[in-house]
Amino acid sequence: MLPADRQHPLDSFFSPSSIAIIGASRDGVKIPGLLLAFMRKNEFPGAIYPVNPNYPDIDGLKCYPTITSIGQPIDLAIVIIPARAVLGALQECAAVGVKNAIIISSGFAEEGGDSAGMQDAIAALAKQSGMRISGPNAEGFFNETKRVAATFSPTVDVRPDHPRLLATKRRIGIVAQSGGIGFAIYNRAKALGIALSYVISTGNESDLGAGEFLDYMVQDSSTDVILLFIEGIRDTDKFLAAARRAAESGKPVIVTKVGRSGAGERAAASHTASMAGWTAAYDAMFAKYGFIVSNDLDEAVTIAAVLTTTPLPKGDRVAVVTVSGGAGIWGADAVSAQGLQVPELSDGVQATIRGLIPSYGSPRNPVDITAQAVHSGGLQKTIDLLDSSDEIDAILVVISLSSETRMPFKKPELKPVIDAQRKPIVFWSYTLPSNFARTVLAESGVVVLSGLTHVAVALRQLVQHAKFKLPPPTAVAAPALRDLSAHLTSATLSEFDSKSLLRAAGIALPDEVLVTEKGALDGATAKAGFPLVLKIQSRDIPHKSEVGGVRVNIASKEEAAAAYDALLASALKHRPNAAIQGVLVSPMARRGVEIIVGTMLDVTFGPMIMVGLGGITTELFKDVVYRPAPVSTDEAASMLGELKAAPLLDGFRGAAKADVPALAGLIAQISQLASQFSGGIAEIELNPVLVHPAGEGVTIVDALVVRKGT
Amino acid sequence: MLPADRQHPLDSFFSPSSIAIIGASRDGVKIPGLLLAFMRKNEFPGAIYPVNPNYPDIDGLKCYPTITSIGQPIDLAIVIIPARAVLGALQECAAVGVKNAIIISSGFAEEGGDSAGMQDAIAALAKQSGMRISGPNAEGFFNETKRVAATFSPTVDVRPDHPRLLATKRRIGIVAQSGGIGFAIYNRAKALGIALSYVISTGNESDLGAGEFLDYMVQDSSTDVILLFIEGIRDTDKFLAAARRAAESGKPVIVTKVGRSGAGERAAASHTASMAGWTAAYDAMFAKYGFIVSNDLDEAVTIAAVLTTTPLPKGDRVAVVTVSGGAGIWGADAVSAQGLQVPELSDGVQATIRGLIPSYGSPRNPVDITAQAVHSGGLQKTIDLLDSSDEIDAILVVISLSSETRMPFKKPELKPVIDAQRKPIVFWSYTLPSNFARTVLAESGVVVLSGLTHVAVALRQLVQHAKFKLPPPTAVAAPALRDLSAHLTSATLSEFDSKSLLRAAGIALPDEVLVTEKGALDGATAKAGFPLVLKIQSRDIPHKSEVGGVRVNIASKEEAAAAYDALLASALKHRPNAAIQGVLVSPMARRGVEIIVGTMLDVTFGPMIMVGLGGITTELFKDVVYRPAPVSTDEAASMLGELKAAPLLDGFRGAAKADVPALAGLIAQISQLASQFSGGIAEIELNPVLVHPAGEGVTIVDALVVRKGT
Repeated sequence: MLPADRQHPLDSFFSPSSIAIIGASRDGVKIPGLLLAFMRKNEFPGAIYPVNPNYPDIDGLKCYPTITSIGQPIDLAIVIIPARAVLGALQECAAVGVKNAIIISSGFAEEGGDSAGMQDAIAALAKQSGMRISGPNAEGFFNETKRVAATFSPTVDVRPDHPRLLATKRRIGIVAQSGGIGFAIYNRAKALGIALSYVISTGNESDLGAGEFLDYMVQDSSTDVILLFIEGIRDTDKFLAAARRAAESGKPVIVTKVGRSGAGERAAASHTASMAGWTAAYDAMFAKYGFIVSNDLDEAVTIAAVLTTTPLPKGDRVAVVTVSGGAGIWGADAVSAQGLQVPELSDGVQATIRGLIPSYGSPRNPVDITAQAVHSGGLQKTIDLLDSSDEIDAILVVISLSSETRMPFKKPELKPVIDAQRKPIVFWSYTLPSNFARTVLAESGVVVLSGLTHVAVALRQLVQHAKFKLPPPTAVAAPALRDLSAHLTSATLSEFDSKSLLRAAGIALPDEVLVTEKGALDGATAKAGFPLVLKIQSRDIPHKSEVGGVRVNIASKEEAAAAYDALLASALKHRPNAAIQGVLVSPMARRGVEIIVGTMLDVTFGPMIMVGLGGITTELFKDVVYRPAPVSTDEAASMLGELKAAPLLDGFRGAAKADVPALAGLIAQISQLASQFSGGIAEIELNPVLVHPAGEGVTIVDALVVRKGT
Repeated sequence: MLPADRQHPLDSFFSPSSIAIIGASRDGVKIPGLLLAFMRKNEFPGAIYPVNPNYPDIDGLKCYPTITSIGQPIDLAIVIIPARAVLGALQECAAVGVKNAIIISSGFAEEGGDSAGMQDAIAALAKQSGMRISGPNAEGFFNETKRVAATFSPTVDVRPDHPRLLATKRRIGIVAQSGGIGFAIYNRAKALGIALSYVISTGNESDLGAGEFLDYMVQDSSTDVILLFIEGIRDTDKFLAAARRAAESGKPVIVTKVGRSGAGERAAASHTASMAGWTAAYDAMFAKYGFIVSNDLDEAVTIAAVLTTTPLPKGDRVAVVTVSGGAGIWGADAVSAQGLQVPELSDGVQATIRGLIPSYGSPRNPVDITAQAVHSGGLQKTIDLLDSSDEIDAILVVISLSSETRMPFKKPELKPVIDAQRKPIVFWSYTLPSNFARTVLAESGVVVLSGLTHVAVALRQLVQHAKFKLPPPTAVAAPALRDLSAHLTSATLSEFDSKSLLRAAGIALPDEVLVTEKGALDGATAKAGFPLVLKIQSRDIPHKSEVGGVRVNIASKEEAAAAYDALLASALKHRPNAAIQGVLVSPMARRGVEIIVGTMLDVTFGPMIMVGLGGITTELFKDVVYRPAPVSTDEAASMLGELKAAPLLDGFRGAAKADVPALAGLIAQISQLASQFSGGIAEIELNPVLVHPAGEGVTIVDALVVRKGT
């Protein structure tokens, strides 16, 4: 972690000493008026300068005709004027040394045409002047610790009859590419009693983008858990640097990426003036940096609640402590469904628990302490006992907290248990928790959770987060001395050309011969040895089997001669205009587990490496894993471990263990190649790769390289 | 549906004219006092007779020393006295003709030993007297339409400062094998404004069980949607009859079955004094009757909310109408993730929508009407337009409803749209909905939903429920004339014996010869023809390949002779004490798609049939489907359609289509066999069955029959 006193360039953005509101208004219903009202109700401690030539004062504050007329240093200007006037106002701001600006106004890139041009001018101004600009089309931000309400979102309104519920000491920071969702996350987190550092909506990101804001949250000592809502990352390098820093420091990032469906992407393109990108690449990036992916608002907030209230677990063994038999079984089911263990407790622990609960309770796991033991203090004692037991890594308390008047817990009994907790202790109420219960339990530092599946997912994510280790950076080797671009002779390389490129890059392949006239066939087959394979080669035929262009298991010279003629005839019939390179003669590969290895270029994140089980499994069960390229052999091996079909490589059903080190080495090599030559190679696909028994290596049977379009 | 005036035997239970409370008390904090207080606060319109020899009166009601002393007809007695006194009180009740009783008291089967014996006596009394008994260890029930609060659950408390929110005209009925969960469902449904008919907790089910209560809800005209919480069904026949009636009448049943995990089962066994059963059989039963399975409380209630407020959709095309771009994309993602369509709208519809929204909105799908169009009425108009469009089957409205003072809808505009809705119109608020919004929208018949994933799941379930058709009953044929029990010669039949049994049952199998002495081998191989397979046969060796007991691809007499010796030697080495039946000589099967077909007996539901893709897929991806046996060939075909690997049977990647009719016929035959002989056969497993190209049938390669234990 960075020292707390470090000055970050965005400190003056998020914690300004002075704020100018350009376009301030006396109309308390419209956006400028709402924003000023929220700012004052939150008791912003610094100077506020309304700017509007139409008023001498607003709400008791002196109002200035222009920015220039203020004559004081300004950390943050909030701009809420018609789009066409924005650039001029910003130029004035830059001229008087305003440090930062947020443009709330809309009507820029999201409208296209001229309006997009105005946004470009704003971006240029930021670059040229050094003034940092957020938005346009932003909903602003809220800094809860410093009481800076720079937004018109009603979520930051202060209502004396609704005191802020605070259950956590640790704070969440929210970065959202949708103002609606960013403040909705805050709205839901607030209802649970989760403390906030900042929530920021990033708008059109003319200058400041989600990546840079993420970076701010990562280095910020008042932010303990980050929630990220992404439509499409624009400042990719900053995002990746921030992601790495988050992973290195262990600060959890919970991320939602929308635009996963076709429909979502359609809207993302029109809505945020950015391509939503290819989701698999995002997920690969999240996996690499240990981000916690959540596709549900309540689930994400539940995960945040657990991360801000409990320590990380040392393992995956969960005790379910319940006051209702049926609800406890449900709790155990939900936790087990997430792959966590609900182990039976040892005789010793069971015996101790028996002393704390009535005879009709159960000390096994779920531990049914019964409603009676709640009032006798057996609940706290059981929790305390399990908290110090080394049989258990986390505790799920299942209870009914709907009462508006009675509490099953006494603060003097519960708070010491929670304060001293050595492992996650999580509270799920099967009835809807009352405000009374939330308030009373908050005093002990407990967030009451309400969605069972979300709680179980949160526990799993907690276990995974605790285990996550960032792989050491994989250096991309300098481009090889030998330039591979000479091999990129067509848009889609033939198998022969693809393999030539791979060989030139140092990748081991079987010896094969390209036969370009029939007279050379006998020599080639003698070299390969029977049985062998013949495959048609043409830059115009990327999918050979579609044209009957492959013959396997050829056992004799005669068969080879006949197959040769048949291949050419079939290609001529199906693709009369294809230029034929020849026929590739390859030895039949020894048997092995079928794997597919591929690379592709993502528009946002660049080269990606993919591995999956080959054959029907990959296609039917979508059992593939992606990572940003390059990966090390260790990372490649851990990708293999994530495949559902991983047991096939590990001696499934008495088969020999497969040569995983050789396969991981190949994946790393291919990922390295895709990174080094991302300027020239768009895609590589090795399909299938056969993985032989341990020590016997792998065989690349077929290969396809696609040149990057220009 | 049954006529509304039909008298059901349990009408006097759920809608009693008079209630006696045995063990009534003046202590308003304990269970008997709470129950009486709730009953009176809910203004039960019938007679209430407290029974307790210690008081002359309670809370202004005359108190009776005994049941007998009441001297009036009693529809329902609620028993809340120590366990040891319960049987005597019930005998008195029966003697004076009390029609029904609920035993709230606990300390019976759930404690085991003597206490279980007391419960048996209660069950016997019910049977002998005709008085129907619910419980013991029950939390009672609540009838909301007739204001019968026969429970101590605080969920039924009446608080004048919290008026009941009512958004739906249709009502849910809840049957729960856990009082805590039953009333928690009600608690959550109430918060959403869903109307209730009854909630009943079934307790230990000494007489009345979950099946019979389900049956009551199915025939009851005030119940429109049923929620069921199951630990383990005891009155199986009544449950199945009720399930069939629900499916026939189209009344939706949302079911949660707990005890799915090992830990859950452990607790279910100790908690409810019943085995939780084998979950796959439950799921098979639910699938057969079109029950909607939900494993989450909020999800189940969300599904109920949608079913009680909207018509069923005609298809799976969803329009997402949003006021926030980011939230709309998220909505589209969530709906798409459930396999529903979010189609782009036609040019015509888009053009009409453009007229209703600002220029920076989007008329595609998601339809981003922008916040501005909310206030101009564009939202209602867009919803109305999409409701009458035949391009769309359901509408998801994405909106922020957290305000406590302002509403985006005007009732006079919204209510007519909702009243006339032709397809589901569902409202999701990305901020937490305020009570104000819930209340105002309830007046238009709208339930505001808060969990996005739950909403998307509910829409999918709605689409599936609308498509569900109950297969016609499959009659179990009378046992065949030939008795198969002679074939059940060992606990685990050898392949040869298993196949003999199957042949005797009329199932087609390849011609095979059991060779019991080497001299007969040549004759047998001549009959089978090369290539062929040799397999060791022994009732003591159920898994032949584990002892090297299979040789395939044998191409000559010499190979066969050598393999024969090798098989015997290998068996002798691995299982020296196994009695060898001989060596089975089979022709090599033609190639085909590998399938596994199996049957097993479930403790609750009896014979079950299972089908899965054979080979590695079944085991790694758990891609199997179960149904209660017997199934028709149509049902068998639809089971095959549910496999993720189904495309493999349908000409995957240019392969020939497989003979699905022949496979479905075999599955039906095997299911019929398992049903007819469920007294003798515990399990059948055909693994693999090879399915050949269409018209070429199937081959059962290996078979195993397990005799039912005695």
